[in-house]
Amino acid sequence: MHGYSGDKQAYLTRLRRIEGQIRGLQRMVEEDAYCIDVLTQVSAATRALQAVALGLLEDHVRHCVADAISTGGPEAEEKVKEASAAIARLVRS
Amino acid sequence: MHGYSGDKQAYLTRLRRIEGQIRGLQRMVEEDAYCIDVLTQVSAATRALQAVALGLLEDHVRHCVADAISTGGPEAEEKVKEASAAIARLVRS
Amino acid sequence: MHGYSGDKQAYLTRLRRIEGQIRGLQRMVEEDAYCIDVLTQVSAATRALQAVALGLLEDHVRHCVADAISTGGPEAEEKVKEASAAIARLVRS
Amino acid sequence: MHGYSGDKQAYLTRLRRIEGQIRGLQRMVEEDAYCIDVLTQVSAATRALQAVALGLLEDHVRHCVADAISTGGPEAEEKVKEASAAIARLVRS
Repeated sequence: MHGYSGDKQAYLTRLRRIEGQIRGLQRMVEEDAYCIDVLTQVSAATRALQAVALGLLEDHVRHCVADAISTGGPEAEEKVKEASAAIARLVRS
Repeated sequence: MHGYSGDKQAYLTRLRRIEGQIRGLQRMVEEDAYCIDVLTQVSAATRALQAVALGLLEDHVRHCVADAISTGGPEAEEKVKEASAAIARLVRS
Repeated sequence: MHGYSGDKQAYLTRLRRIEGQIRGLQRMVEEDAYCIDVLTQVSAATRALQAVALGLLEDHVRHCVADAISTGGPEAEEKVKEASAAIARLVRS
Repeated sequence: MHGYSGDKQAYLTRLRRIEGQIRGLQRMVEEDAYCIDVLTQVSAATRALQAVALGLLEDHVRHCVADAISTGGPEAEEKVKEASAAIARLVRS
């Protein structure tokens, strides 16, 4: 079980919607949609992906990192470092 | 014809690969992959989407904005404003 | 003369305000302000800096890139590539 | 005492360096530096600010959030939500 397990179906629904947005982008390019309209949809898909990431991260801190901290020992610090590296990747992507 | 028309097939290939990344994310969630591994893949898909956006934007300035500037008149300023708004959405997404 | 020359004083005013925000951050750290409050101010300063960047970029496309396109020749393509690289740095920072 | 207290001097040094970068930007604008060179320095200052934010956030999770989790009770969940909101502001700025 992981941090997001309780919301698994909700995450799958969001990821399927994002898959639909990406297929919509392919249709726009195939039908020669105007560049700026394509870019607007790319920004919307990017924001949707980042919202999924922020949700996963919150669930991860609430469950996995919290469990490691409650247990204590070296794993707590390891989990904090791992989560921080994931946040850094997210901020820079 | 739009800025990206010359590279249409390349953009479609990249968008299909991103669609594959999103389906891969769904599989990871279904199979209860570790949160941080899911997050790493979300960051990779986000970066791939942003690379598509940067390519579309470069093609747009090179063709659509450049054409409007060469023609002159109020449309040139309109295109510059429109491109700037798209860049702002991209930076903030 | 550059793209931002007409708004030089406005840019200097904005940069001085950002300098004030950074000094405010130093005071907060010196006075042991709560981490989250410091982070909120860091986000505000980051957004202010990005707004300056978006303004400079719009002015640059409107003037420098447009001039190069009007003149034509290899410099036009060079300016488009240079602006695209700056946009990419901005999106990824 | 807060999460960053142990590294207070290091954070102050980094913030003073960023203040120097912002003053350097003012000089560049005053001396009519080329737009793209100004933009490159704005990106560098933005990255430096985000690195400070990522450090503060890591320290905050390691100390403040961890303490609240160890203590337990409603404050633990409150701290997780507060940290998540700060991460979201950071990702979107």
